[in-house]
Amino acid sequence: MTQRVLTGITTTGTLHLGNYVGAVRPAIRASRADGVQSFFFMADYHALIKCDDPARIEASRLQIAATWLAAGLDAERVVFYRQSDIPEIPELTWLLTCVTSKGQMNRAHAYKAAVDRNSAAGEEPDADVTMGLYCYPILMAADILMFNAHRVPVGKDQVQHIEMTRDVAQRFNHLFGQGREFFVLPEAEVEADIELLPGLDGRKMSKSYDNVVPLFEGGARAMKEAIARIVTDSKLPGEPKEPEGTALVALFDAFADAAERTAFREQLRAGLGWGEAKQLLLAQIEREIAPMRARYDALMAEPEKIEAILQAGAARARAIAAPLLAELREAVGLRTFRPLSAPSTVAKVKTALPQFKQYRETDGLFYFKLLGADGTLLLQSQGFAQGREAGQWVARLKNEGAAALAGVPLQAEAQADAHLLHQALAALQEEAANSAQK
Amino acid sequence: MTQRVLTGITTTGTLHLGNYVGAVRPAIRASRADGVQSFFFMADYHALIKCDDPARIEASRLQIAATWLAAGLDAERVVFYRQSDIPEIPELTWLLTCVTSKGQMNRAHAYKAAVDRNSAAGEEPDADVTMGLYCYPILMAADILMFNAHRVPVGKDQVQHIEMTRDVAQRFNHLFGQGREFFVLPEAEVEADIELLPGLDGRKMSKSYDNVVPLFEGGARAMKEAIARIVTDSKLPGEPKEPEGTALVALFDAFADAAERTAFREQLRAGLGWGEAKQLLLAQIEREIAPMRARYDALMAEPEKIEAILQAGAARARAIAAPLLAELREAVGLRTFRPLSAPSTVAKVKTALPQFKQYRETDGLFYFKLLGADGTLLLQSQGFAQGREAGQWVARLKNEGAAALAGVPLQAEAQADAHLLHQALAALQEEAANSAQK
Repeated sequence: MTQRVLTGITTTGTLHLGNYVGAVRPAIRASRADGVQSFFFMADYHALIKCDDPARIEASRLQIAATWLAAGLDAERVVFYRQSDIPEIPELTWLLTCVTSKGQMNRAHAYKAAVDRNSAAGEEPDADVTMGLYCYPILMAADILMFNAHRVPVGKDQVQHIEMTRDVAQRFNHLFGQGREFFVLPEAEVEADIELLPGLDGRKMSKSYDNVVPLFEGGARAMKEAIARIVTDSKLPGEPKEPEGTALVALFDAFADAAERTAFREQLRAGLGWGEAKQLLLAQIEREIAPMRARYDALMAEPEKIEAILQAGAARARAIAAPLLAELREAVGLRTFRPLSAPSTVAKVKTALPQFKQYRETDGLFYFKLLGADGTLLLQSQGFAQGREAGQWVARLKNEGAAALAGVPLQAEAQADAHLLHQALAALQEEAANSAQK
Repeated sequence: MTQRVLTGITTTGTLHLGNYVGAVRPAIRASRADGVQSFFFMADYHALIKCDDPARIEASRLQIAATWLAAGLDAERVVFYRQSDIPEIPELTWLLTCVTSKGQMNRAHAYKAAVDRNSAAGEEPDADVTMGLYCYPILMAADILMFNAHRVPVGKDQVQHIEMTRDVAQRFNHLFGQGREFFVLPEAEVEADIELLPGLDGRKMSKSYDNVVPLFEGGARAMKEAIARIVTDSKLPGEPKEPEGTALVALFDAFADAAERTAFREQLRAGLGWGEAKQLLLAQIEREIAPMRARYDALMAEPEKIEAILQAGAARARAIAAPLLAELREAVGLRTFRPLSAPSTVAKVKTALPQFKQYRETDGLFYFKLLGADGTLLLQSQGFAQGREAGQWVARLKNEGAAALAGVPLQAEAQADAHLLHQALAALQEEAANSAQK
């Protein structure tokens, strides 16, 4: 069976070479496997949680879309769309919100981290926490369940969200499925040995370390300048150099085959100067990146083309999402109006229920009795001077059930089968509880 | 100026005579006022919070829609729609979720009441609390802001939600409006002397007291039977009766004009029997309700007609909602792809920024310097044996700004203007902080 694999793409900022090697390239490769239907979406509703700068959101969505296409994502083969083009997703988010327990959200890592930071700083636990941060695991569940993805490649920090997604899917299936499984339970797919590219200074490549090689931004020149800044030891040309453990060689490896890796190491051990080594590294990277950069620049010059690609992707995505959402709406009761199957559910239940009767006797007093569904007398009160008194006892018996029996003033002859009486009171109590929920 | 008034209609259960007198009738009357554009919506997304019985949701939506139409709501004059037919509402809900603080939700009455109940019962504070209950003030804000309602008639317990709606509207206007006010700040309209109809036993008419007169359910017979059960004192026909303070007279008043009220009291004081009085009451109510019941039964027999009315209402509602949502999407940055106004926001900012330069001199040592945006030398380091050392100082200066200046090994000749230097470092620090958010 075809496995659906869903990948969300962050749309804040731009990408660097580490993102390319660690995320973009492997995801695109995986999307070419047989037996896989891949969904790639730009998570721009999520981006709004972190970023309230519209210009940045706008630029990043375009740049990131162009990046993935330039890097070889085949929008014909995969379903590539912007989350914000699928109105079914926020609607599903609400349906899931109604069946998600708040306690589960309290345990989400991202939220707990924010609370810990606040506590450490002596702030209120929820200081500066937005509902976006708090609720986003539900949006993420909707992202996944909307397309019934089997597998979701994620980092370790996201495994918990996939578990939450499974929980809410199970709960929805249980509550509304009546034996049907609307939702597949997705599996988190944690990349065991994700390639972590070192940055210019040897630490993990990250914008927060200011040690990145940009992917396309700034063009070939920016890449060349970045590579020139790679930190090396101070060995001079001609001196033998130890290649292992250097950022420069790790970067080279990410763009080379086995033979090239061996050859590069040999050159360094034989005294290749760092300057020349950087030129070789640049050439090695550019062999792969330069054609992509050309595609990227061409795409960025024609945003309307990317728009058309993503609109087509959204149409394909909605062709899957809309029929599923229609089923879900039907399941929860948001149905096109049609004749009700019974006069009304409530009336149907009532015909099978025991009944209290209140009435006034010729003695001028007020009475009540309880009749079983079949008419058996189960309870017979004494007479009350006020009708209200009888009504109050009836109300208490309906609401509290057998617990209210103790004080009821009964006639001696009313010796009903205790089991039948308790059954009847329990049925009425349940009915009263249901009515109160209305 | 036309005032837009928005009324949400609960869609769980069915209505009784108290709902009609207290809510339906006054709302329909108000909708006929001049200078008012009324929006009435079936709050069926909200219903999902309280009810996971699809049959009940289905029946209630149909019955409640038929009830309002039968009671005289003019679907041509007002905009009458189902919340769940407006996909713009859940999308707006997400946009608002991203700008709502969690602290504010913690203070919502309905949530706090649930926590109090749990605490009193010795449970975890959030036991059995769903995210639906917790988040619904945001959905309610979206209901209101989607149509920029000026006034929202609510009970006292809902005033807080209107205040929350104003807060989130203000926050959104402030963050994204750039001087534009996307959202009107709505006013809560609390009915000062809402008519509280007594039930059969004299207490407020309420399903939880089991003392209701049904509105349409069960037909004329159910209404007659309910009225026969109204509690009175035990005075016999011919005895003078005190009309004031009785449930029977209060019910009569709700369907009578001043002259009829006076006449009814006089009859009772003159000895009218309770049985006859109940017949008069029934006739008085039926004068108003019977024609409505006929319309109700006719509507319930043709659900497809109600469906068509609500679909037409949804189309009118979406004609207002969709253009506003399009503006909001544009405002937050969810824009149709087009050429970016500058090569990229980031690049644009960078050209105006001071720059660190790292380089190696002929002495084999590593240096860095800081140049102002205009090229002025602001900082000149001493030489370092390792390039990494220079890089680390640069990273610290970028991230910590002038605070990191203290330990930097500088050359004697680098005596820049301290003010310019601090300005430059502050600009770079801000840029670093922005990048880290990406």
